Amino acid sequence: MDKAPATRIETDSLGSMAVPADKYWGAQTQRSLLHFRIGEERLPRPLIRALGMVKYCAALVNVDLHNLDERMGRAIAEAAQRVMDGEMDAHFPLVIWQTGSGTQSNMNANEVIANLANLGLGGALGAKSPVHPNDHCNRGQSSNDVFPSAMHIAAVEQVQTLLIPALRHLRQTLRDKSVAWADIIKVGRTHLQDATPLTLGQEFSAYATQLQLSLARIDDSLKRLYPLAQGGTAVGTGLNSKPEFAEHFAARAAQVTGLPFVSAANKFEAMASHDALVELSGVLNCIAVSLNKIANDIRLLASGPRAGLGELMLPENEPGSSIMPGKVNPTQCEAMTMVCAQVMGNHVTVTIACAQGQLELNVFKPVIIFNVLQSIRLLAEAINSFNEHCVVGITPNRDRIAELMKNSLMLVTSLVPHIGYDKAARIAHAALKNQITLREAAIASGLIGAEAFDAIVRPERMVSPDRSEPLLGASNE
Amino acid sequence: MDKAPATRIETDSLGSMAVPADKYWGAQTQRSLLHFRIGEERLPRPLIRALGMVKYCAALVNVDLHNLDERMGRAIAEAAQRVMDGEMDAHFPLVIWQTGSGTQSNMNANEVIANLANLGLGGALGAKSPVHPNDHCNRGQSSNDVFPSAMHIAAVEQVQTLLIPALRHLRQTLRDKSVAWADIIKVGRTHLQDATPLTLGQEFSAYATQLQLSLARIDDSLKRLYPLAQGGTAVGTGLNSKPEFAEHFAARAAQVTGLPFVSAANKFEAMASHDALVELSGVLNCIAVSLNKIANDIRLLASGPRAGLGELMLPENEPGSSIMPGKVNPTQCEAMTMVCAQVMGNHVTVTIACAQGQLELNVFKPVIIFNVLQSIRLLAEAINSFNEHCVVGITPNRDRIAELMKNSLMLVTSLVPHIGYDKAARIAHAALKNQITLREAAIASGLIGAEAFDAIVRPERMVSPDRSEPLLGASNE
Amino acid sequence: MDKAPATRIETDSLGSMAVPADKYWGAQTQRSLLHFRIGEERLPRPLIRALGMVKYCAALVNVDLHNLDERMGRAIAEAAQRVMDGEMDAHFPLVIWQTGSGTQSNMNANEVIANLANLGLGGALGAKSPVHPNDHCNRGQSSNDVFPSAMHIAAVEQVQTLLIPALRHLRQTLRDKSVAWADIIKVGRTHLQDATPLTLGQEFSAYATQLQLSLARIDDSLKRLYPLAQGGTAVGTGLNSKPEFAEHFAARAAQVTGLPFVSAANKFEAMASHDALVELSGVLNCIAVSLNKIANDIRLLASGPRAGLGELMLPENEPGSSIMPGKVNPTQCEAMTMVCAQVMGNHVTVTIACAQGQLELNVFKPVIIFNVLQSIRLLAEAINSFNEHCVVGITPNRDRIAELMKNSLMLVTSLVPHIGYDKAARIAHAALKNQITLREAAIASGLIGAEAFDAIVRPERMVSPDRSEPLLGASNE
Amino acid sequence: MDKAPATRIETDSLGSMAVPADKYWGAQTQRSLLHFRIGEERLPRPLIRALGMVKYCAALVNVDLHNLDERMGRAIAEAAQRVMDGEMDAHFPLVIWQTGSGTQSNMNANEVIANLANLGLGGALGAKSPVHPNDHCNRGQSSNDVFPSAMHIAAVEQVQTLLIPALRHLRQTLRDKSVAWADIIKVGRTHLQDATPLTLGQEFSAYATQLQLSLARIDDSLKRLYPLAQGGTAVGTGLNSKPEFAEHFAARAAQVTGLPFVSAANKFEAMASHDALVELSGVLNCIAVSLNKIANDIRLLASGPRAGLGELMLPENEPGSSIMPGKVNPTQCEAMTMVCAQVMGNHVTVTIACAQGQLELNVFKPVIIFNVLQSIRLLAEAINSFNEHCVVGITPNRDRIAELMKNSLMLVTSLVPHIGYDKAARIAHAALKNQITLREAAIASGLIGAEAFDAIVRPERMVSPDRSEPLLGASNE
Repeated sequence: MDKAPATRIETDSLGSMAVPADKYWGAQTQRSLLHFRIGEERLPRPLIRALGMVKYCAALVNVDLHNLDERMGRAIAEAAQRVMDGEMDAHFPLVIWQTGSGTQSNMNANEVIANLANLGLGGALGAKSPVHPNDHCNRGQSSNDVFPSAMHIAAVEQVQTLLIPALRHLRQTLRDKSVAWADIIKVGRTHLQDATPLTLGQEFSAYATQLQLSLARIDDSLKRLYPLAQGGTAVGTGLNSKPEFAEHFAARAAQVTGLPFVSAANKFEAMASHDALVELSGVLNCIAVSLNKIANDIRLLASGPRAGLGELMLPENEPGSSIMPGKVNPTQCEAMTMVCAQVMGNHVTVTIACAQGQLELNVFKPVIIFNVLQSIRLLAEAINSFNEHCVVGITPNRDRIAELMKNSLMLVTSLVPHIGYDKAARIAHAALKNQITLREAAIASGLIGAEAFDAIVRPERMVSPDRSEPLLGASNE
Repeated sequence: MDKAPATRIETDSLGSMAVPADKYWGAQTQRSLLHFRIGEERLPRPLIRALGMVKYCAALVNVDLHNLDERMGRAIAEAAQRVMDGEMDAHFPLVIWQTGSGTQSNMNANEVIANLANLGLGGALGAKSPVHPNDHCNRGQSSNDVFPSAMHIAAVEQVQTLLIPALRHLRQTLRDKSVAWADIIKVGRTHLQDATPLTLGQEFSAYATQLQLSLARIDDSLKRLYPLAQGGTAVGTGLNSKPEFAEHFAARAAQVTGLPFVSAANKFEAMASHDALVELSGVLNCIAVSLNKIANDIRLLASGPRAGLGELMLPENEPGSSIMPGKVNPTQCEAMTMVCAQVMGNHVTVTIACAQGQLELNVFKPVIIFNVLQSIRLLAEAINSFNEHCVVGITPNRDRIAELMKNSLMLVTSLVPHIGYDKAARIAHAALKNQITLREAAIASGLIGAEAFDAIVRPERMVSPDRSEPLLGASNE
Repeated sequence: MDKAPATRIETDSLGSMAVPADKYWGAQTQRSLLHFRIGEERLPRPLIRALGMVKYCAALVNVDLHNLDERMGRAIAEAAQRVMDGEMDAHFPLVIWQTGSGTQSNMNANEVIANLANLGLGGALGAKSPVHPNDHCNRGQSSNDVFPSAMHIAAVEQVQTLLIPALRHLRQTLRDKSVAWADIIKVGRTHLQDATPLTLGQEFSAYATQLQLSLARIDDSLKRLYPLAQGGTAVGTGLNSKPEFAEHFAARAAQVTGLPFVSAANKFEAMASHDALVELSGVLNCIAVSLNKIANDIRLLASGPRAGLGELMLPENEPGSSIMPGKVNPTQCEAMTMVCAQVMGNHVTVTIACAQGQLELNVFKPVIIFNVLQSIRLLAEAINSFNEHCVVGITPNRDRIAELMKNSLMLVTSLVPHIGYDKAARIAHAALKNQITLREAAIASGLIGAEAFDAIVRPERMVSPDRSEPLLGASNE
Repeated sequence: MDKAPATRIETDSLGSMAVPADKYWGAQTQRSLLHFRIGEERLPRPLIRALGMVKYCAALVNVDLHNLDERMGRAIAEAAQRVMDGEMDAHFPLVIWQTGSGTQSNMNANEVIANLANLGLGGALGAKSPVHPNDHCNRGQSSNDVFPSAMHIAAVEQVQTLLIPALRHLRQTLRDKSVAWADIIKVGRTHLQDATPLTLGQEFSAYATQLQLSLARIDDSLKRLYPLAQGGTAVGTGLNSKPEFAEHFAARAAQVTGLPFVSAANKFEAMASHDALVELSGVLNCIAVSLNKIANDIRLLASGPRAGLGELMLPENEPGSSIMPGKVNPTQCEAMTMVCAQVMGNHVTVTIACAQGQLELNVFKPVIIFNVLQSIRLLAEAINSFNEHCVVGITPNRDRIAELMKNSLMLVTSLVPHIGYDKAARIAHAALKNQITLREAAIASGLIGAEAFDAIVRPERMVSPDRSEPLLGASNE
């Protein structure tokens, strides 16, 4: 005979609810589970950590400000620390698709922490005593400042610990390639058509520069994510909080994270809008644009092996086809560009969600932070994968590069300063039409002699204005 | 002392790999796990089911066409059935961010099924004999036709089993409200400013009609999702498949699902593009637009309880605030509009991903189907939640509605046919400026007498051209 | 000495305004000019035509229903006809960025028509007599049903007269190419990597099929654009209109256009939402996705002339570079893909604008129809340009195609049914690694003899399951 | 009898073309007109100005570097000055939908300038002598560096001269309102439901802060727009340019504009990608999000006049309805939110266009800059219109605000620190259910006495933690 799972009774201001006996959440979390059976996207770990951190810092600041009994405050802080550290993730069952203020997840944190603290203080699960989820865990706070603060903390921590290191690694790999390949002269391509030459190192220096600039973009956007809403409470006025609370809280958060969090100068803005996250999402979108270009280029240059451009050889990580034996595909480029498409779409979600705030509160908070955190993580991990399993192992096909190079008609461009554009064009057209080399066409044209041609048309002199060192991404530092 | 987890050796065309002893996947799945440590978004259940279905149908058709040993074919079909039924989900560990053709997930299915079949036939895990993942499970197939077929099957099944029923339920609730509230005359609002009256039933009839039209949109888009790519194999030519395979396969799929799947007339289009899924995503986007409007309207009409419009009362499902006691919020509207923002962003992801196909293959397949399936599920479940926990329980605040109604200056509009627009405007301006009723202003203007005013300005006659029955959504059927 | 431009005085319900003496608009148009100095995007011609048509039909229906003096009605209809025909475009100066209901442009039409009609009836400009802009030109109408009706009429007319013919032409060209090139066997490419062969005709049949399906998508979406909001007046109730007005109006519109316009079953939906235009925009977005793929493919296949794929040769319409003489670029592909990017972005604008309707009215009407009409026109004209200046003139480079074809390692796939996937993979790897032909590698492997190889590996037998005729787009009809 | 318009013959490397006799453009411009009959969106004025500026600076730098005959150089510079100044706009007929490198518009500039310069030097139109469009006007340049440089110059100039001043003005108006209304205590609203009070000044301080932060966002993004691609020529190597050219050019551009333009450190990045413009577009998108919130809030607060929130009164600029006399609508809010929707969609276009660059060149340049410039202009002009015609004239309805304020149940929140959340919730529920005041419900509950209630529940003490001055946007400076 099946037994119903064991439950206990928890209460909130609307009445009582049965919750699973082995879970630490309370009545409000349980109500959310009942009323929001939508999807399976749960609050991501970095956000649960940040919620724990808010509760941890708030409890200690309340104790400091003599606004909370010290024993109770310590118990709350200890419980909150366990939430931060990931020990309680199984007790955070709520999905993104709940109330738009994240109130239910704030209450989830309050309930879990209250139960944990009460156990430590000799109380019972569900007793809400001595520690009450609202009156003590949420003291001087509102979901309306807790959740935005957690959003900023989570986004900044993930950018700092995941995305920035990943970008730096890939930038370094690209710079290394740029230096290593500084002597490989190849055909340039504009409009996907043969153009004047450049070095493979120069080509990769553009990619390194894109990532260098990506890092600068992130730095600028972080400036507007460090300010925290905490202290605004319900509508930004700070009602029911102590005057010093906001500043002390930000200082605590800065101490815990080692990051320069500060108290937002205007709490009304910090709760009613999430412009700072739209801005960050815009930067992630920009980084996705950069990476899409880089991955696409590498895919193009590695196309082949025999009927493509064939200039680069990618590591062979896995069989490429279930039906075509021996096929190798640019799968890391594919994963990267799929991630980029996701990030670009996520940015639209964030934009739409942020544009619809009303009066004192934006109520799209969970979907905003869900998308921002997903974009950060996917970009960071795709960059690491792309770097490690693709870019590091790329090798140039020097023979192929040289062969394509020497047949290029666009070497004709170096004749322009000598014979003018119109005559040079005539030579190029003749070479193409008659399927002969540029040199043959030039000499046949009577417009230039063989010796002059050989003196002028020298690919190795065409990769810079004056034969100085090629530009490398590194020089942008 | 910790023990390393037990492993066994599996092989593929690139060599051997250690895989967890208790998992049925093989070397290629394991390679993907190593090379794509990106995110945690795994292939959704409906897609695994569809992959199982493709393998099931293909095996049986191959047997029918004498292209596969019957004993082997039956063993494959039985194993594939278990994949369809969800028994093997723990053996499908791959993420979305893999090769863009879904080859690794097709091979995951082939490997799991081969191992299961071999066990049944007395073989060993990893033996690839008698049943070989490529040569038998994948016979007459390629990832390039298997994965697109599975995408269509999964999308159609989810639309049919989740989304359409959800839309129908909510449409019915809205129609019921529309009928029940046919007699409640209320102020209309355009530009958020008071306008001429309508009934609350008429207002809700618009919502019912929006969902009615949503269902029609879905029906039309499904027409282009029933055609399946299967039989195109590697590039659309059908190389290595039997001529009858494609048609027989589609018939099998139709039989298994009870849905009118057919073989795509042009396999090249069906593999190189995923336009049919962009189209479906466009319809989902359109439905999100409709639902966003409905949820926003209900949120507006229920604003208050004392400082808002206050015309509707929503069910009180949970405490609304962690700091403000007694607060009740339109949380189901919030979950719905968050879902809508997600669906609109997902549509951009799908658009970008589908636009970037190249030559014989689009290699954004996993991200496309991931977003489409997420959008379908979120919409369906949010609709059900919104219906059950919000719309069903809405009650009108008749007193409030009547009070707002009778003060409205826009009743003046019914005077226009009698005294002209300009004079009517003068009356309305006077009423507003002097804070008097429209009737008082009309009489004071000398432009119309009290008796005529009372005969003309009758809200109950202003909700239709000719006092016939108000239009209901039902009439659109 | 400069003279101030001559003006005359016009009045509306707020007072009097000076308007340019040579313009037929009135006070409300002039107020809009003063208050909305934003951008330079004016109402497009097709929308002015549609506004004229609404006024034309409404006047005649009002006369028919004895709701308007016949002489006045005829004068209004004649003036409206001139608006339809484009004679009065200089008198429609308003920008898109005005009131979101389009009221100011509806009044612009009413004012111009009233002035024109009054001149015809012996009245003076600005007299508003005998024909009054509101009381007669707008009789039984509201901006709230006039503007939505005009939106649908304009969108449908443009789709019917511009987009559908353009798509049909390009589809035919692609089909012609598909038939003409049915015998050209070439290397297929998946993941941009060499794959099994197909014919160039088959490759182009996919494009023809994409356009065939585009036409089907348009047809389905038009079904929901034929219903017109006219007759709903201010909020959908039809206040101040005659009961028969809506149906008669739609019949008139159908007669004038020759298109099956009908009266919307639910006017509340038709005014409060613009879902039908989001749906159409979604179809335009889908068509942009299709065209982006086609243009990108052609650009790729024509890359070169010497360092690219080089399979196709495009018409040389203009010099490609200001610095590189003789360069020819795929400029029509570039214009097309730029248009596609615009259409995809426009779709997001339309989505966001439509999602934000409130209660009885969506007030993003001008921006919605501006974007939809721009997308239709750009797609249609880009398709015509692409067809005429690019696709028609494409020629295959048969030598290049044959050379790439015969070197392809993926011909190995035809060995799989004979020796199995793993052995076939070994042969392909050996050929690539040792830079030898597939035949050499196969024979060297000892896995298959020369005679068997030659019997099996026959590209011309690899482009279909059974050597029947290649599939063409035409077969989809 | 109609005469064909007079023409003259111009030539380019492909042959000769007839061009209108009264136009200064040449053969390549004419070819573009013939081959790109798509839409009517022409190059915007700021971009023509920037193209002129590039030609002006390049000519002078070439003279300085002894790379161009001084007399010729001066003639080119003078002609280019006229292009900058807008005198030649009628000679720039090309649409956006041309070659993706903007080559045809670069050649349009070269041709117009060459013709102008030749006239000045005694030559004939179309003579290409002494000044040749390519050899002299384009000396040391390529479309591939000219067009990107012009894109940056145009975008930065428009941001500096239009957008930043507009944002500053509106910020100031909002700050002024915030200060003026610092004493108006009103009900706060979260989730559109009544919440704890704040001042109207505080509410508007959030808007001022949003614009303050918008300005900071712009400043940061400009840093990456000042670097110019000029000097990279065809593929970034600088072929055919003098080594000092790039730096000298940037210095000239800085001098002409008074803005800190510099030479891009990596020319390959600057031509192959347009990440800096995606970043700027992301900031414009973020600003649109901010403005959408502000305009929506004001629309909500001004809803009514009798059946809405009615807290604000907007200037009455025009009649609001063609059918409802006396109606006044928030039309400036509507224009603003329509512009915001356009900017958000434009951002997606820019994102998609920038993501598709290939190898040495992104060929979506015209569509990118078209959308960026449209977004800048629309935002700037909509902000000015919104400021001047709406925000400046807003007045608060103090009676209405006070009445809503005193009825609010959420004043109960101030009881929480005294009696706890659960008891306070009971009081609020009772007040709502029994339709009594909060004070009545509190006293009836027996949980608090009348005196204590009056001492605690004081709205004027609920708008800050400690009664210090309310936060104003100004404090963010």
